[in-house]
Amino acid sequence: MKIVKVHLGPRSYDIVISHNSISECSRLVKKSRIGNYAYIITHPFIKKSYGKHLENSFKKCGIDFKFKILPETEKTKSIDTAIEVVKDIVKIGKSKNIFLVAFGGGVVGDLTGFVASIYKRGIPYIQIPTTLLAQVDAAIGGKTAVDLKEAKNIIGAFYQPRIVISDTSLLNTLDLRQLRAGLAEVIKYGIIKDKTLFRFLEKNKEKILAKDKKTVEFIIARSSSIKAKIVEADEREEKGLRTILNFGHTFAHAIESASRYRKYNHGEAVSIGMICALEMSYRLKMLNKYALNRAIKLIRSFGLPVNIKGVTLEKIMNSLYYDKKFIGHHTRFVLVEDIGKTAIKQNPPISIVKSVLKERLK
Amino acid sequence: MKIVKVHLGPRSYDIVISHNSISECSRLVKKSRIGNYAYIITHPFIKKSYGKHLENSFKKCGIDFKFKILPETEKTKSIDTAIEVVKDIVKIGKSKNIFLVAFGGGVVGDLTGFVASIYKRGIPYIQIPTTLLAQVDAAIGGKTAVDLKEAKNIIGAFYQPRIVISDTSLLNTLDLRQLRAGLAEVIKYGIIKDKTLFRFLEKNKEKILAKDKKTVEFIIARSSSIKAKIVEADEREEKGLRTILNFGHTFAHAIESASRYRKYNHGEAVSIGMICALEMSYRLKMLNKYALNRAIKLIRSFGLPVNIKGVTLEKIMNSLYYDKKFIGHHTRFVLVEDIGKTAIKQNPPISIVKSVLKERLK
Repeated sequence: MKIVKVHLGPRSYDIVISHNSISECSRLVKKSRIGNYAYIITHPFIKKSYGKHLENSFKKCGIDFKFKILPETEKTKSIDTAIEVVKDIVKIGKSKNIFLVAFGGGVVGDLTGFVASIYKRGIPYIQIPTTLLAQVDAAIGGKTAVDLKEAKNIIGAFYQPRIVISDTSLLNTLDLRQLRAGLAEVIKYGIIKDKTLFRFLEKNKEKILAKDKKTVEFIIARSSSIKAKIVEADEREEKGLRTILNFGHTFAHAIESASRYRKYNHGEAVSIGMICALEMSYRLKMLNKYALNRAIKLIRSFGLPVNIKGVTLEKIMNSLYYDKKFIGHHTRFVLVEDIGKTAIKQNPPISIVKSVLKERLK
Repeated sequence: MKIVKVHLGPRSYDIVISHNSISECSRLVKKSRIGNYAYIITHPFIKKSYGKHLENSFKKCGIDFKFKILPETEKTKSIDTAIEVVKDIVKIGKSKNIFLVAFGGGVVGDLTGFVASIYKRGIPYIQIPTTLLAQVDAAIGGKTAVDLKEAKNIIGAFYQPRIVISDTSLLNTLDLRQLRAGLAEVIKYGIIKDKTLFRFLEKNKEKILAKDKKTVEFIIARSSSIKAKIVEADEREEKGLRTILNFGHTFAHAIESASRYRKYNHGEAVSIGMICALEMSYRLKMLNKYALNRAIKLIRSFGLPVNIKGVTLEKIMNSLYYDKKFIGHHTRFVLVEDIGKTAIKQNPPISIVKSVLKERLK
């Protein structure tokens, strides 16, 4: 078992990582006096696969619970669903000390965290992420959001969970495509902040793809620790420090938006986005050829996509220049100077942005 | 001009109190770099009476603005209205640095603060309270909330404004009933925390009811300062310190709820609630007869109601024992031991609760 601490003063919490940490859940909740009634938000498949396991953990410690099962669709992350959930929680009554449990991937985590932040001006919630992507990224740091039809992620709050329980056994049912999506973010941490993690990924490809317990535990702990440190330094994304987490994401969001969130999952778009950002770093003479090739090779070696298909350059450029990261009329890209070292580039020439994207469309 | 500081670390802000402080609004916004586009939420009457004044202030400093005029109905404080407002803000576009302005009473303040807290995970907002009640209470401390049909104030956030501008000239159009409602909260501050304020109220009744500038400025500053100190000590109502602000409110909420929020405005219900809490303090031998009579005399002298009409004891008792302040099955009342000194009483005999209420129903 590995424990990563997120130091945020009164909002500090632990990320507990191990094979089967879910069975510790109830004990951790009791120890931290989080509440006596668990309102668990999840998807049908997760409930079916791991629901009993979580139930047993809560029963053992005498914690009451209720499952709220939401479909695996886009609509689950909407403000309408958030309000529907609040109305359902109201029905439980006032005598219970309710806390929420996000038992799923990023969508469930974002929705649950947001509902917890607005119900009675904030009640406790815990994260039990069930995908690698959520374990290494979305479940940590308290960024919550829901969509309006008019705009994605437009409504949200910074609201920290009370514990994050990353159980590697939950990854058993994760298919290869979802596993790779999570690995894209793990590779990102290596590139932006951690040469050791980067080397570890180079050397342990097989073990990782085979979901070897100890190996996966290591990469989750290492990634969690990087994310935790960045969040500690810039909890509400006010100091620009959290920006480096957006490495590859500026391109990724544009690719996702231009393909209407259908063709690529988030990790895949991040993979292509990182390639674009690496190429851009190289062309701007910030990154040498050796490091560029090494990073691209690592991304490719995990079977992640590096080229864009079925989307036009025009559409991506349009999305890119409406991306939320562009403050006012400025564009800002997170680039790299070396493996483990980032640099922010303001207003790079549009011709270079276009050209690195064009390369990917071949 | 009086300035009261609310010390909350990175969330600290000033309460600026004076006759005509609204004309300083734009300068204060510029100085604190709050934004360049003011989205002003208000009511038709406020817009008509003072809109031009605020407009001129913003125009003078080159701050763009838009008025969002909402009706003076219960529905304005609903989650539906909050989402409607968010959708309207989305339309403004991404190139502006939007901040919100709550230009109205408690309803506008609660709605605006909540929208500011959830839009893009929080954007700045300022409070320009237009009623005495909002100036001395609701606009300070960052408690925001909206209603569901199922439950009042059930959705909300703790989210601090960036400035509070209390302009006493805005009280010119306030009718006597609304003025008195605000005075109920001012009297509350005197009773729970400030003998000097209490004495000042005893001595300056005429000047206050005549809205004498300097006198009103003094009572707002004094009240704001008390509220600020309590909020500083317990920002998120986690330590039980903010509880003392609920003096008279446990009874008040029950009276409001039992009369379906129609018969009494909040200040009037608080007035009756304070009488009940004072009587209870006396009967439990916590407060002496002299202090009891002095407090009741002050409340009466401002023309505030002291008796309940048109509501049954049964309905109030039912509401009371469902009040949110009752944690689990416990009841908790804020009582007083002397003018300026409170004490919390857990589970007082129901017979006494009933009896002090019965006295008021005569």
